[in-house]
Amino acid sequence: MEAILDIEGEKSEEREFDVAIIGAGPAGLTAAIYATRYGLKTVVFETVEASQLSLAPKIENYPGFEGSGFELLERIKRQALKFGAVHKFEHVERLRKDGDYFVVKTDMAEYKAKALIIATGGKHKELGVPGEKEFVGKGVSYCATCDGNFFRGKRVAVVGGGNTAVTDAIYLHEIGCDVVLIHRRDELRAEKALQEELFKRNIPVIWDTVVLRIEGNEKVERLVLLNRKTNEESVLEVDGVFIAVGIVPATDIVMDLGVERDAAGYIKVDKRQRTNVPGVFAAGDCCDNPLKQVVTACADGAIAANSAFEYIKMMQL
Amino acid sequence: MEAILDIEGEKSEEREFDVAIIGAGPAGLTAAIYATRYGLKTVVFETVEASQLSLAPKIENYPGFEGSGFELLERIKRQALKFGAVHKFEHVERLRKDGDYFVVKTDMAEYKAKALIIATGGKHKELGVPGEKEFVGKGVSYCATCDGNFFRGKRVAVVGGGNTAVTDAIYLHEIGCDVVLIHRRDELRAEKALQEELFKRNIPVIWDTVVLRIEGNEKVERLVLLNRKTNEESVLEVDGVFIAVGIVPATDIVMDLGVERDAAGYIKVDKRQRTNVPGVFAAGDCCDNPLKQVVTACADGAIAANSAFEYIKMMQL
Repeated sequence: MEAILDIEGEKSEEREFDVAIIGAGPAGLTAAIYATRYGLKTVVFETVEASQLSLAPKIENYPGFEGSGFELLERIKRQALKFGAVHKFEHVERLRKDGDYFVVKTDMAEYKAKALIIATGGKHKELGVPGEKEFVGKGVSYCATCDGNFFRGKRVAVVGGGNTAVTDAIYLHEIGCDVVLIHRRDELRAEKALQEELFKRNIPVIWDTVVLRIEGNEKVERLVLLNRKTNEESVLEVDGVFIAVGIVPATDIVMDLGVERDAAGYIKVDKRQRTNVPGVFAAGDCCDNPLKQVVTACADGAIAANSAFEYIKMMQL
Repeated sequence: MEAILDIEGEKSEEREFDVAIIGAGPAGLTAAIYATRYGLKTVVFETVEASQLSLAPKIENYPGFEGSGFELLERIKRQALKFGAVHKFEHVERLRKDGDYFVVKTDMAEYKAKALIIATGGKHKELGVPGEKEFVGKGVSYCATCDGNFFRGKRVAVVGGGNTAVTDAIYLHEIGCDVVLIHRRDELRAEKALQEELFKRNIPVIWDTVVLRIEGNEKVERLVLLNRKTNEESVLEVDGVFIAVGIVPATDIVMDLGVERDAAGYIKVDKRQRTNVPGVFAAGDCCDNPLKQVVTACADGAIAANSAFEYIKMMQL
């Protein structure tokens, strides 16, 4: 299959680009809008993992748009494609430098680009407790919008205290689940508007509590909990558990390039989204920007494209 | 009028806010969306000058939206108001510190706030040539969308070479003006997609040329031009001239607060949109961010609101 594509499917010049963007979330797609409008030949690689944005049931704080994350992402993608960005559903396996070019090796082929924009976002964090891996798809989920429907009329727990956890709890309640929120602290991190919505719906919160184990036979049947203040264990009967305890940056792909990351794995960038490696830029949740929001990811993407444009212009002088 | 409003129109507690946002463009309104969602009592002052965004005939590069700048701004404003931001059409005259509070003096009243977000944007730059001031509203305009309609079927010149100038030329051509673009260099600064649209429409460009004088009797009749390479003068008969030679930041308002600005007048901010004065944040075109776009202004606003929230939380400890 790969060989056929190599020989017949594409001409070799279609493998050479000015900019290769790794990741097709809001940061990567906005970078594509800007790069193409700067006249750069641009390819965007959409990898296996879906953008976190596409999983958000409701976006209220993106300026000028209200609706699902999926719809917002589709709109941004349409804009990028309209301006001529090439979109590839290929998984990027390795990035390396070869002379003046960067080489992007995917599961299908190799591509060359003068500049790279890394916009790989993040992936969900795991609890790391017994039963978690074993029951994935059998009651353990990291995506309320993907899997919520299976739990209408059933008992579910959401684990976490940030915006995602509270949004998930509200969403699951909305579609008719019997929801409880489990949080390890006595205060939520989520923004106040979301907290108010949670409390208005009388969704119960189990405070100061962590999950020790996820148990069941064929599928999830109960959680064993620990109250961190009283040190008491308890059992909560549930049909499903949604884990929303945060995101870790998906940045292992830049290791071979020598791109610097901080202790938590975020790519270090300056105000112009430049990494320490000339020609390599980063945007969105994978980098060490001060706020992780859709609109800030988009802005990062625009700035990264501008910096890539400046870099390529300089190369040609 | 002011006295009546002071005594009867509003209770004094409606003059105290957590955050006062100066400016109601994309940066200020996004800051309002975020500030209200963080649970902060928020007021936004919309001053006399309209946001540059509201004047843009067509926005194509804002992720997730295509349409007029005015419509985009209205949508963002609706979101901010929905979440509870107080919106005031008052002109801010002075800002000062008074103990733990900042005082915002407008043409109507005085308000107190724990934190300030400066989002005053920019205002158009003038050419500074004879006839310019004299013919404003009589053929000289700084806003194609505002005044273009008066020139349908007539000869107009656009002066400038950036995105705004090229967008204006395309817009005026679209609505039926006989357009020529005058640019002082031999290359446009505008992004390539816009340049292509300009050339596709065969809009003529007078290169390497500056305007020496704007002449006429009751209204604009001609421009006296100078070619900077050949040093030759020429006369161009026009009914109108649209000046789009850039924006200067509207930041004089922060002087009394001791907020640092760069040589060009932009407010200096760090990655978290903090100025050198604790409690004062800045966002959008008025600050020294690396790219001036609608989406970057919005992102600045979100970050500034987050920083204001952190600042106010710390104050209360």
